[in-house]
Amino acid sequence: MHVNGNRYRTIWPRPENPKIIEIIDQRQLPHRFVTVSLKSAADCRRAIKDMLVRGAGLIGAAAGYGMYLATLETGGSRLLEDLREAGEFLKSARPTARNLAWAVDRVIGAVTAGADTAPAAHIAFAEANHIADEDAQFCKMIGEHGKSLIRKISAQKGGKPVNILTHCNAGWLAFVDYGSATAPIYAARDDGIALHVWVDETRPWNQGAKLTSWELLNEHIDHTLITDNAGGHLMQNGEVDMVIVGTDRTTYTGDVANKIGTYLKALAARDNNIPFYVALPSSTFDWHLSRGSDIPIEIRPGDEITAITGATKDGNIERVTIAPAGVQAANYSFDVTPARLVTALITERGITAANENAIRKLFPEQPTRHP
Amino acid sequence: MHVNGNRYRTIWPRPENPKIIEIIDQRQLPHRFVTVSLKSAADCRRAIKDMLVRGAGLIGAAAGYGMYLATLETGGSRLLEDLREAGEFLKSARPTARNLAWAVDRVIGAVTAGADTAPAAHIAFAEANHIADEDAQFCKMIGEHGKSLIRKISAQKGGKPVNILTHCNAGWLAFVDYGSATAPIYAARDDGIALHVWVDETRPWNQGAKLTSWELLNEHIDHTLITDNAGGHLMQNGEVDMVIVGTDRTTYTGDVANKIGTYLKALAARDNNIPFYVALPSSTFDWHLSRGSDIPIEIRPGDEITAITGATKDGNIERVTIAPAGVQAANYSFDVTPARLVTALITERGITAANENAIRKLFPEQPTRHP
Repeated sequence: MHVNGNRYRTIWPRPENPKIIEIIDQRQLPHRFVTVSLKSAADCRRAIKDMLVRGAGLIGAAAGYGMYLATLETGGSRLLEDLREAGEFLKSARPTARNLAWAVDRVIGAVTAGADTAPAAHIAFAEANHIADEDAQFCKMIGEHGKSLIRKISAQKGGKPVNILTHCNAGWLAFVDYGSATAPIYAARDDGIALHVWVDETRPWNQGAKLTSWELLNEHIDHTLITDNAGGHLMQNGEVDMVIVGTDRTTYTGDVANKIGTYLKALAARDNNIPFYVALPSSTFDWHLSRGSDIPIEIRPGDEITAITGATKDGNIERVTIAPAGVQAANYSFDVTPARLVTALITERGITAANENAIRKLFPEQPTRHP
Repeated sequence: MHVNGNRYRTIWPRPENPKIIEIIDQRQLPHRFVTVSLKSAADCRRAIKDMLVRGAGLIGAAAGYGMYLATLETGGSRLLEDLREAGEFLKSARPTARNLAWAVDRVIGAVTAGADTAPAAHIAFAEANHIADEDAQFCKMIGEHGKSLIRKISAQKGGKPVNILTHCNAGWLAFVDYGSATAPIYAARDDGIALHVWVDETRPWNQGAKLTSWELLNEHIDHTLITDNAGGHLMQNGEVDMVIVGTDRTTYTGDVANKIGTYLKALAARDNNIPFYVALPSSTFDWHLSRGSDIPIEIRPGDEITAITGATKDGNIERVTIAPAGVQAANYSFDVTPARLVTALITERGITAANENAIRKLFPEQPTRHP
């Protein structure tokens, strides 16, 4: 997508030296656009853990490249053992994110399978690139499928702008390109469909205010920033036509773990008969879990709630405390929206109801694992 | 209640010169405890409009004293005309707040009724004091009635701490004393009932983070600050036993306008079979409105969302921007929770179901006005 008119992905190997992986430091947006170089698996883990990179697909891509960098740090008889260890260390960075474990396992699988035919680093690099390219490609296809839903509402409204509410950032910054929840928005815009996006600011990290707004400004898409508290009121008053969100892990039964607060929006959508869509590449499915309540929910430091970073009027970046000294804060990062509240899932293979039968029809190659 | 161990109300005439009304500048909490002197009706309106004072009962009390100060600024044949004008000007400060109009009309009514027997300023001062004293007294009674609900849950849990979630600040800072939603909490604490409060930070003004936390710290009540997004997750996981919130205007049918986001919590409470209580002195009822959707919803400036004030590590108070420059933000201040989601109302006369019949049984003196 575009930054100041130039095309970017969120992660890329440096062209002249692909042993260095470049990312955008998303903690500094929207105030500063800064890229950071990752030179080791530990760098990758730190970037994931400290949220320089975040979002389902981008965490997966960063983990893929992290595993590639891990192959450069080992070799010989310890290769697979070291990779598994590096993989476990990477996985522990963000417990809820499904794409993280998926990408780690995929690179280890590729290296294991190809170990006799090519150097591990070559295989891992190819697989990491493949993960990143596939992520971008799948998001593009989510856009193609999802835009039909927007087009239908646009027709019902006689071409008046379709009001779409989204929570957190499931935009291109959360993936390698296009995004999941935003892909249908970008695709519909490309088709000339009029639309307007309500952007939940998404406390406590404010990914909506800092990232989604910034994306949409750069893509010239009409949008309005609101507090996380406001969506229900807008829905009650006919100001929201549809909700599209992303997900960090989705069970094969259609339960959806996404950024904390998603469940509240799903309840409001249901109470007001507004369709609630979840967009995801299939890499976000957890084919081992049947119940959303079994998804581990990450708990992050309380000071992410009690302090916040912003720009002073002099342009300095300053961290300020916004709660009384000594207050105890609990920072749950995700919640689970049960499948019953999800109108449909938008995947790279098409749109499916959020239930096991429908999901398995779309992904018949996935083995059935009942507990 | 207590500030650093000393007893305070939120508004009081200066003892040695009651023509000056003292308030706490709540915009500066929790970082600084500063009192401000109001010397005119215009001062009072500004304090209400700019949110030096806020909250249902305190807005009412400030309006009452504002009308008293207005009597000092007029007299003679223009008295009632000027008071009505001052009243309309005060009322326009916060359109959703029911107590504001109620207090203005009450002082005008008292002055009109007593004009032949006493100076207008004496009558208005007595009435303003009466409004303030009654507010404190009614909140205390809300506490007495409401604590029975907490005691019941405490007994069911075998004395384990009762987990109460609250949104915004309906604490003593929102009234003259005790608060509405917090009154049962303070009363239960005084009875030795173990409890813990989940405090929604309440964007965009963060009344939960800045005021409710500060109150509960000063009162030594166990509590945890959370984002507005987190309540649904906590309810899904059995971490919330009951919800108690305040209200800025309640129809005689039991629809409740309260701080934006309240509706989302009510939906989550219903989805998880958790009782959802609304505490209010009867001054907050609107006996003219049958439908919550007819309550005017205040829209405040967008920069209350895109910028925030906090304390730097050097202790300076600094305002920082937390969204991209130029982003459009919409700042709806209240939403309406329909009566169907309200388990019961806690008033100074007792606990009532949120429907017209039950409410009228408790307040039979109110005339029936059907549109």
